[in-house]
Amino acid sequence: MVRVAVMGATGAVGREMLLTLEQRHFPYSSIKLLASERSAGTTLLFDGAMRPVELLTEKSFDDVDIVLASAGASVSKQFAPIAAKAGAVVIDNTSAFRMDPDVPLVVPEVNAEAAQGHNGIIANPNCSTIQMVVALAPLHHAAGIKRIVVSTYQATSGAGASAMAEMAAQSKAQLNGEPLPPAKKFRYTMAFNCLPQIDVFLDNGYTKEEMKMINETHKILDPEIRVTATTVRVPVFRGHSESVNIETKKKLTVADAQAILAKAPGCVVLDDPANGIYPMPIYAEGRDATYIGRIREDDTVANGLNLWIVSDNLRKGAALNAVQIAELLLERGWLKPSAEVQTTEG
Amino acid sequence: MVRVAVMGATGAVGREMLLTLEQRHFPYSSIKLLASERSAGTTLLFDGAMRPVELLTEKSFDDVDIVLASAGASVSKQFAPIAAKAGAVVIDNTSAFRMDPDVPLVVPEVNAEAAQGHNGIIANPNCSTIQMVVALAPLHHAAGIKRIVVSTYQATSGAGASAMAEMAAQSKAQLNGEPLPPAKKFRYTMAFNCLPQIDVFLDNGYTKEEMKMINETHKILDPEIRVTATTVRVPVFRGHSESVNIETKKKLTVADAQAILAKAPGCVVLDDPANGIYPMPIYAEGRDATYIGRIREDDTVANGLNLWIVSDNLRKGAALNAVQIAELLLERGWLKPSAEVQTTEG
Repeated sequence: MVRVAVMGATGAVGREMLLTLEQRHFPYSSIKLLASERSAGTTLLFDGAMRPVELLTEKSFDDVDIVLASAGASVSKQFAPIAAKAGAVVIDNTSAFRMDPDVPLVVPEVNAEAAQGHNGIIANPNCSTIQMVVALAPLHHAAGIKRIVVSTYQATSGAGASAMAEMAAQSKAQLNGEPLPPAKKFRYTMAFNCLPQIDVFLDNGYTKEEMKMINETHKILDPEIRVTATTVRVPVFRGHSESVNIETKKKLTVADAQAILAKAPGCVVLDDPANGIYPMPIYAEGRDATYIGRIREDDTVANGLNLWIVSDNLRKGAALNAVQIAELLLERGWLKPSAEVQTTEG
Repeated sequence: MVRVAVMGATGAVGREMLLTLEQRHFPYSSIKLLASERSAGTTLLFDGAMRPVELLTEKSFDDVDIVLASAGASVSKQFAPIAAKAGAVVIDNTSAFRMDPDVPLVVPEVNAEAAQGHNGIIANPNCSTIQMVVALAPLHHAAGIKRIVVSTYQATSGAGASAMAEMAAQSKAQLNGEPLPPAKKFRYTMAFNCLPQIDVFLDNGYTKEEMKMINETHKILDPEIRVTATTVRVPVFRGHSESVNIETKKKLTVADAQAILAKAPGCVVLDDPANGIYPMPIYAEGRDATYIGRIREDDTVANGLNLWIVSDNLRKGAALNAVQIAELLLERGWLKPSAEVQTTEG
C-alpha cells in the first residue's frame, strides 16, 4: 500500500489518472490531489468519495511515495526534483525529462526493465509514441524494423480539456451558422479542419511533436530504427490514429503480423476489412488497448507493411501508461531509487 | 462557343462544375442541366439565370458538344458511350473509364497531351490523385521520384452532399447531447471520428480508393513510380489533405523543392512554419490551387522529402479539373475524337 499524489489532478490527463487508478484498484493507502492556484480548492470524485484538491507546494511531497505528474513541463521541472528529493518516485507525463539520459522513459509492455534504473523520476512518453511502440515493438523483435514513416491523426484532447472545449464551441457555432469563437488553444480554427502543426517548429522544419516520436522511439525501442514523422491535429475529441509504414529486415506476411500482435501485451488486432472491422478513435475512447488494423503488405519496398494504429491518447497515451509504471514499481519492488539500491549493495 | 451539358448537375460536384464554368467565363453557347428522376424538374442558378434541370435520357446529347459527367460510375457507364456516339466529348468525373486503355486520364498541368488521343471519352482522375500529381509532377520531372508513401485526410464532401449533411447532423446531435442520427452514407459514425476506409476493400487488403491513387498515378505520371497509400476519411467538410513522403533519384533540398513548386502550374507554396504558414483544408475551400507546405528533408532514406498537400476536393479534385480539360480541348482544337482526325488525315 503506497501513498499517491496526482499533480495536475484537475486536467484532462489528471482526471483520467484518477479514473484509471480507481478502475484498476490501485493499492493506495492515501491519495493527494494537487493543482495550481487556479484549480486548488475544488473537489474531485475518486474511489467513492469527493476529495479536496490541494494547492501544489514544495511541502506537498513529504508524505508521498508515488507522484503521477501531469501539470505541464515547467511545473514538472520545478517540482519533480523536489518530490524525488523528498523520497517519492515521480512518474512524469510531461516532456520535461524524457530525453534526460538519467531518466528512464518507459512503456511497460516494451522496456519495463528500464524503470529499475530510476533516480526518483521516470518519464512517461509522448502519447503518439506510446501507441506506436506498443504496436511496433513485437514486430521489431520478430523481424527487425529498419524504417518507420508515420503520419498521425491526433485528437484535440492531447492539448487539454480547454482545447476540446474550444473545438466543441467552434463546431457548434459553425453548425448553427453563428460566428466562430476565435482560436486560442490552437493557432487556427480547429473545427472541421486539419492542423499540420502540433507543438512548436524546430530549425529543421519538423515540429517538436514529430521529433518526440523520433527521439523517444529511439530511446524506448531501438536507436537504430530510422523514423520520420508528420503529426497532424484532426477534429476528433479523443483517440489518436496513426498511419504507419514500416520496412523490416525479415519478411513479415500480413498473417505473421496479425498473429504476433494478437499475442502481444496491450495490443488488440481489429483487422477484418471484408467485414468492415478496423480501429477507429471513437471506439477506442476510455479503453486501455492499442488497436491495430488495416495491416497490408507494401510491395513498393522489400519487406514493407502498412498498419493503422489507434489508441485513446488520454488513456494508454498518458494516464494508463503512468499507472502501469506505478504498478510495475510496486510489483518489482523498484520504488527506491537505483542509486540507493546500489549504495545498500556496496 | 460550344454546347455544354452537365450530367448530375444537382450533386455536390455538379453544382461546383456549374460554379466553375461561370467563374471562369467558359465560352458556352448553350447549357443543359441533366439529372436522374429524383432531381429532374428542379431549377439551378447558372450564370445569372435560374435554369431547369432536365431528365437524363438517351436523347439528351443530340445537341451537345461537351458533357461534364458526375452522376456516378454506373450512370456514366450507361450514358457516356451514348453521348460519345452522338458526337459529344464526355469528360467523366467517375471511376467508370479511368483505367480503360482507350480513355485518356488527364490532369492538364501534368499530361495535357494525353487528352488529344480521346475517342469521345476523357476521364477525370480521382480527387486524391489529382492534387498529389499536381504537386509531385514538377518534382518528378526535376529529380525523378522513385517511391511515394501517402496517407490522406479526406473530406466528407468526397462522398457527396448527403454525406456532408450526415456528418453535420451527427456533429450537431453530439454537441447538443442528443442521440446521433445513424450512419447511412458512411459505414460508421463520421462525426469527430476517423474512418480508415474509403470505397470498398479489395482482396489485397487495400481499398479501391488506395488502388486508385496507385494506378492513376501510374497512368497519369509514370508507371515506374512505386506508390503505397492509406486513405482515411476525416471530419472535414471540404478539402483533402495528404501527408506525402517521397524518395527521389536526384537530391532535392527543401529550397529546391520550394523553388520548383513556386513556379509550377496550379501549385501554391505555403511553407513558412516559423510564421505558422502551412496549408489547411478550411482555407482551401472554393479555391483553385493545390497548396503545398511542410516541406522537410527526410534523412531516414537517400533523397527523402516529406510534404503536406492540400486542395479543395470538389474544386481541383473534381469540377475544376474537368472544366480545365474542356478548356484544353477548345484551346487546342481537340474536340473531335482522334479516330476521326486520323480518318481525315488518311
